[in-house]
Amino acid sequence: MSKVKLKRRGRVAPERQRPLEPGLRQSMYDIIFGAESYWGRMFDIILLLAIVGSIAVVAFETLPSVRDDEAQVAMYLRCEIGFAILFGIEYVLRLYCTRRPLRYVFSFWGVIDLLSFLPSLLVGLGAMRQNAFVILRSVRLLRVFRIMKLWRLMSEADVLGEVIWRSRGKIVVFLSVVMVAVTISGALMYQVENSPYQKTHPDAVVDSKFDSIPQSMYWAIVTMTTVGYGDIVPETTVGKIISAALILLGYSLIIVPTGFVSAEFNETRKQIKKSADCTDAQSASRGEIGDITCPACEENVQLKRAIFCHRCGTRLPRD
Amino acid sequence: MSKVKLKRRGRVAPERQRPLEPGLRQSMYDIIFGAESYWGRMFDIILLLAIVGSIAVVAFETLPSVRDDEAQVAMYLRCEIGFAILFGIEYVLRLYCTRRPLRYVFSFWGVIDLLSFLPSLLVGLGAMRQNAFVILRSVRLLRVFRIMKLWRLMSEADVLGEVIWRSRGKIVVFLSVVMVAVTISGALMYQVENSPYQKTHPDAVVDSKFDSIPQSMYWAIVTMTTVGYGDIVPETTVGKIISAALILLGYSLIIVPTGFVSAEFNETRKQIKKSADCTDAQSASRGEIGDITCPACEENVQLKRAIFCHRCGTRLPRD
Amino acid sequence: MSKVKLKRRGRVAPERQRPLEPGLRQSMYDIIFGAESYWGRMFDIILLLAIVGSIAVVAFETLPSVRDDEAQVAMYLRCEIGFAILFGIEYVLRLYCTRRPLRYVFSFWGVIDLLSFLPSLLVGLGAMRQNAFVILRSVRLLRVFRIMKLWRLMSEADVLGEVIWRSRGKIVVFLSVVMVAVTISGALMYQVENSPYQKTHPDAVVDSKFDSIPQSMYWAIVTMTTVGYGDIVPETTVGKIISAALILLGYSLIIVPTGFVSAEFNETRKQIKKSADCTDAQSASRGEIGDITCPACEENVQLKRAIFCHRCGTRLPRD
Amino acid sequence: MSKVKLKRRGRVAPERQRPLEPGLRQSMYDIIFGAESYWGRMFDIILLLAIVGSIAVVAFETLPSVRDDEAQVAMYLRCEIGFAILFGIEYVLRLYCTRRPLRYVFSFWGVIDLLSFLPSLLVGLGAMRQNAFVILRSVRLLRVFRIMKLWRLMSEADVLGEVIWRSRGKIVVFLSVVMVAVTISGALMYQVENSPYQKTHPDAVVDSKFDSIPQSMYWAIVTMTTVGYGDIVPETTVGKIISAALILLGYSLIIVPTGFVSAEFNETRKQIKKSADCTDAQSASRGEIGDITCPACEENVQLKRAIFCHRCGTRLPRD
Repeated sequence: MSKVKLKRRGRVAPERQRPLEPGLRQSMYDIIFGAESYWGRMFDIILLLAIVGSIAVVAFETLPSVRDDEAQVAMYLRCEIGFAILFGIEYVLRLYCTRRPLRYVFSFWGVIDLLSFLPSLLVGLGAMRQNAFVILRSVRLLRVFRIMKLWRLMSEADVLGEVIWRSRGKIVVFLSVVMVAVTISGALMYQVENSPYQKTHPDAVVDSKFDSIPQSMYWAIVTMTTVGYGDIVPETTVGKIISAALILLGYSLIIVPTGFVSAEFNETRKQIKKSADCTDAQSASRGEIGDITCPACEENVQLKRAIFCHRCGTRLPRD
Repeated sequence: MSKVKLKRRGRVAPERQRPLEPGLRQSMYDIIFGAESYWGRMFDIILLLAIVGSIAVVAFETLPSVRDDEAQVAMYLRCEIGFAILFGIEYVLRLYCTRRPLRYVFSFWGVIDLLSFLPSLLVGLGAMRQNAFVILRSVRLLRVFRIMKLWRLMSEADVLGEVIWRSRGKIVVFLSVVMVAVTISGALMYQVENSPYQKTHPDAVVDSKFDSIPQSMYWAIVTMTTVGYGDIVPETTVGKIISAALILLGYSLIIVPTGFVSAEFNETRKQIKKSADCTDAQSASRGEIGDITCPACEENVQLKRAIFCHRCGTRLPRD
Repeated sequence: MSKVKLKRRGRVAPERQRPLEPGLRQSMYDIIFGAESYWGRMFDIILLLAIVGSIAVVAFETLPSVRDDEAQVAMYLRCEIGFAILFGIEYVLRLYCTRRPLRYVFSFWGVIDLLSFLPSLLVGLGAMRQNAFVILRSVRLLRVFRIMKLWRLMSEADVLGEVIWRSRGKIVVFLSVVMVAVTISGALMYQVENSPYQKTHPDAVVDSKFDSIPQSMYWAIVTMTTVGYGDIVPETTVGKIISAALILLGYSLIIVPTGFVSAEFNETRKQIKKSADCTDAQSASRGEIGDITCPACEENVQLKRAIFCHRCGTRLPRD
Repeated sequence: MSKVKLKRRGRVAPERQRPLEPGLRQSMYDIIFGAESYWGRMFDIILLLAIVGSIAVVAFETLPSVRDDEAQVAMYLRCEIGFAILFGIEYVLRLYCTRRPLRYVFSFWGVIDLLSFLPSLLVGLGAMRQNAFVILRSVRLLRVFRIMKLWRLMSEADVLGEVIWRSRGKIVVFLSVVMVAVTISGALMYQVENSPYQKTHPDAVVDSKFDSIPQSMYWAIVTMTTVGYGDIVPETTVGKIISAALILLGYSLIIVPTGFVSAEFNETRKQIKKSADCTDAQSASRGEIGDITCPACEENVQLKRAIFCHRCGTRLPRD
């Protein structure tokens, strides 16, 4: 049953785009889209480094010290255009080696790939506002997980994903509780902080920071997650008492999901383990004393039907 | 024993208000109060959206940019009155289809329902202060859980509620410890921060932010929950040293409940699972001792109808 | 072995102070020092309320709005003296009914009890500085746990105490790691933030908030526990990068103890449960089908030697 | 398999530096480098106290109140030079008693040891900038773990280290997710907060605090870890809505590792326990099938030397 669930979450196989006939296009496809071969992985790593580099360029470009210096701006702009050209070439190659290029163009990754270099290329000579597209480049960073998967981190990522997927019901309940709590406390604090007779000092600043209900709700979220910026804080005594109570309540509320994730994680792992054990145990044979060696303590006199090592209690391997 | 506890938490059955004779009133009752039928659920969802909408209207009304604009204020006021009329109609229908309307009027939800539209309706033409009642509307949001329950999230919500209910003893102990810690550290910091010979700089601002013990206790709560607004911070060296120690202490203190909830959650889930298995087993055929071998301990003297091995508690295979 | 540990933590029995001969003094002793009888518990609850009340009086006394108002100051002062007289009477009674009064006077609680009313009583007419002793009153709040214990929360509190006691080794290791990390990052940030060539803006405020190493260490503690007041924040670019890294590191560091406490808590509970189970199972009898009723699913046809219910896998009670 | 992993983490044995021939140098080596003997431990504790003391001196030296006072500066300087001389002597002794002094000089600890006293000693009379080297002294604090190890905390520290080592895969996945999330939200908030048409108030301060993408990423890290300094906060309404969403998301993201560590910790402990049991069992007498009955599954065909039931893995009672 767990297996069915695991499969249901599988993504659409990318093989549908792979050119059918062997040749340059197929080899290029394997390198550019695949990550199984050595060169495929190399390509992905280099691409990832280029993405990180281009993000760094756009990011540093926005630093005040850079923006004030003509020379540096020009330098960063050249890097920027360089990366754009690189990504442009990559895009063209992707178009070339896919079986149905249009399908790729209108796919999620196709749009992201196009938008991540086009604006820089077009506006490269004119205005400066293209760094809005750094977000799209950041999205491309998600490719990092494709490479990772191959480095044996696959099972970790799968357990993680599985845990989040299984907890979805609880996450919905939890977020609803949080939103209701946020709305109620936001509305409450707005009222309390704006009552004219609540000011501690008669000469207190007249305008409270809780100047609207949405603002109060923003405060409630910032407070309940224990972020606590301090840009909006209760000024009145009653407001402080109420917010102290809300903090303790909100804190208790927000601890609960930790328990979820922990419990879910444990169970998911156990299940994955168990199904592995079951497979191992499939071909177990029966008898009296047999020759099975415990993998943990190297004891090799075991009852043939033993499931656990009689010496250290480790589960025995079945051949 | 676990069952008794679960039952004790059950709410008063709402069926007592259901009209006895079939007809329009009964059908309306099922739609408005029930959530089992398709239309009953639809009604609840629409009502929920209306509640969310009306809260949004009152919330946005308080935004400074809206308050300064005459046209927008008038527009929001109209929406506001529109929602109030809608809720008024709903209230009248609720009165109409309940068996004993007065009982509903004076029930918790009856009062909430009335107060959530009455002020807007009455003051709709005069003063602006009715948004105090947005809190009551927010309370109505709790209806969201009734709808959710039906979307198979019931068991999640139940486990959650059960966990909190079971942890109540620990929560009381924990809150007592926190309150004692808060009182002691609040009083301590008040003394430390207000000693005249403690100022780091001779020209430091004379009045400390720790201007009273309740204020210091508010600081202690904000600090120990790691919210840390920063509106009140220690200024003296000794105050900083003490508060650093308090932070570490308070932090350790506050981690502990995570362990509770986690452990309690695991156990509650296991128990609920078991009792669900019991229900499944209700219809198991009765018989005497049969020949089923436990896959875990190989015990082969089992009751024919056994679901679990009587020796090690492992679930038996069924053919 | 677990039992031995549990015992080692037992406190000195307070019975040594109980008057030997029955009579008024013994009865008073049972009421004042004990919490087993109805009146003993009543006395403790009333005393606790008086302590809370007296703390509230001293706390509210320090509010700026109260301090400015002559009438209120006088009123609070009278309450204050009233409570002091009450605690004085209680102290005298305690002296009267203990077997060896001097031993009580110089015990921890004796000193606390004396200091919690004496200053108020003495200085009640003169200066205003006696609220320093509110800390001592707060300490008296710890009595709350004695009462609680009797309300069946004992086992919870015991598990909690046991968990903390068992984790002491890990807590020491953890605090050492934290202190080393705090020292290193404090010294690092002090250097980074005070290098003259690190300022982002040439016109930045000259004096950094990281004006000394102890201050930087205070910042490191506030940051690593995610309190984050914001009174001291990095101003330079390098400082921000380093502190971002430190935050992620410190955050990871500080999550670890959660795992401890969780794991320790689970194990402690299991052990306590197991030892309870063992005691139950002591008198188990052997045979074929016997008449044991499962407490969870009410199945009463069980093998006599069954340990688990064959139907729902619940552990069966042994008589 | 677990053993192999545990071994791989072992450090280079320090015995290679121990002088071969018995005598003064060997004894000194055992005291200075070892911590097994009484004097060796004493030396380490004294050294640790000296390190703590010297750090305290350099730390207090930077306090503004000290820096303004000529007399205190001179006093601290003398302490400072005193500690430097002490560490110098220790360094010379270390050189004297190691078999190959040069190897020590260029080892990690050798360099740390040299740099922790040399600058103070050299510049002790001139400039004041030597406190940059307090970081190196802080690094020496890590020696604390060597002493601790001997105080039976070894297993705790080992479990901790093991847990972190085993979680490395998950930590990498987790940090990647965090960095991608930080980059995306940083770039997003930079755009949102700097759009000219987003300002809530027309007279709002023109320059947003989100003045560059790296700054926004710093904000994202500070926010997602719930540190929340409040030095950079969203000013626009859209910015507040987005950051509220990001906080909830980031919060959920950041809870996940708690589950990891918890689960990993439990498993690691179980394994270490088991392998310890194996070591105990090393000297168990060898034999054939005996008559021991498992207390859990009542299986009575067990190997005579069995410690665990071969059927259910429960520890068998030993007479």
